[in-house]
Amino acid sequence: MAKVAVIIDKDFEDSEYLQPAEALKNSGHEIVHVGLKEGEEVKGKKEQTPVRIDQSVKNATADDFDALLIPGGYSPDNLRAHREAVDFALQFMNAKKPVFSICHGAQLLITADALKGRTLTGYVSIAQDIKNAGAKYLDREVVIDENLITSRHPGDLPAFCKACVNKLR
Amino acid sequence: MAKVAVIIDKDFEDSEYLQPAEALKNSGHEIVHVGLKEGEEVKGKKEQTPVRIDQSVKNATADDFDALLIPGGYSPDNLRAHREAVDFALQFMNAKKPVFSICHGAQLLITADALKGRTLTGYVSIAQDIKNAGAKYLDREVVIDENLITSRHPGDLPAFCKACVNKLR
Repeated sequence: MAKVAVIIDKDFEDSEYLQPAEALKNSGHEIVHVGLKEGEEVKGKKEQTPVRIDQSVKNATADDFDALLIPGGYSPDNLRAHREAVDFALQFMNAKKPVFSICHGAQLLITADALKGRTLTGYVSIAQDIKNAGAKYLDREVVIDENLITSRHPGDLPAFCKACVNKLR
Repeated sequence: MAKVAVIIDKDFEDSEYLQPAEALKNSGHEIVHVGLKEGEEVKGKKEQTPVRIDQSVKNATADDFDALLIPGGYSPDNLRAHREAVDFALQFMNAKKPVFSICHGAQLLITADALKGRTLTGYVSIAQDIKNAGAKYLDREVVIDENLITSRHPGDLPAFCKACVNKLR
């Protein structure tokens, strides 16, 4: 079974954390919440879902994990202002470990400069940012490009969760 | 005196609307709130500052205004998902009319593809997006590049407001 890091900060899109995390746990995988400060409680932007940060990203390395989940909302915008969060995501991309990104999640990968030549999707508001980062943007519910699995918004969650779970089979 | 459009949607950074709008009004300029739906009340993300939308962006044209103010927060991310808001901002850039953008405001200009060869600043989280858009990013409290005046965050507001007011003298 896989050990999956969820990189998360306040104002995440609740469903984009809850549903993939639940699907992964139901498939027997371990979820570790990685954030800016160990022990801190961060909340989702709509439903105020509380998430306790298990591990500070400063002390985290992709070597200890099998995959990365990046929920959307405003969490990626907060995280990308911190170099250690950007570097953590970059480690997964460089190691070609599975990266599951939905909605605004790709913002973290843009700041990591990890999208050149890749094909992906994300929330419509960041479509131009994704293209400008040197990637191909597709308007599809789920895009699978080797290790990188991406979706656009909460409406894509069933397809996104299925693709994430399949990737770790 | 100038007629200034403020393009704004919910979850704007309160101070980044309040302080420039106040400074411009105190200098005798007219402020018109342009948004997604005329008559709608949108609120700031921190202080819940209420703003009534005076004019729908669908019916707005830069021809009717002398300058554009783009407050930050999550308002620009909401607006850039709507083509008519993006096109409205683009009209000001094409006409070389003053554009005042702070924090995440530049996101709207990125989607408008209006930043190639320009020099500006913005919130640290979108620095890579600004560079990827073909612009030069400067980490300064205010950057003046011809018609385009930009700042990074609320801490830059005194310098930003002063530069905006001076531009309309």
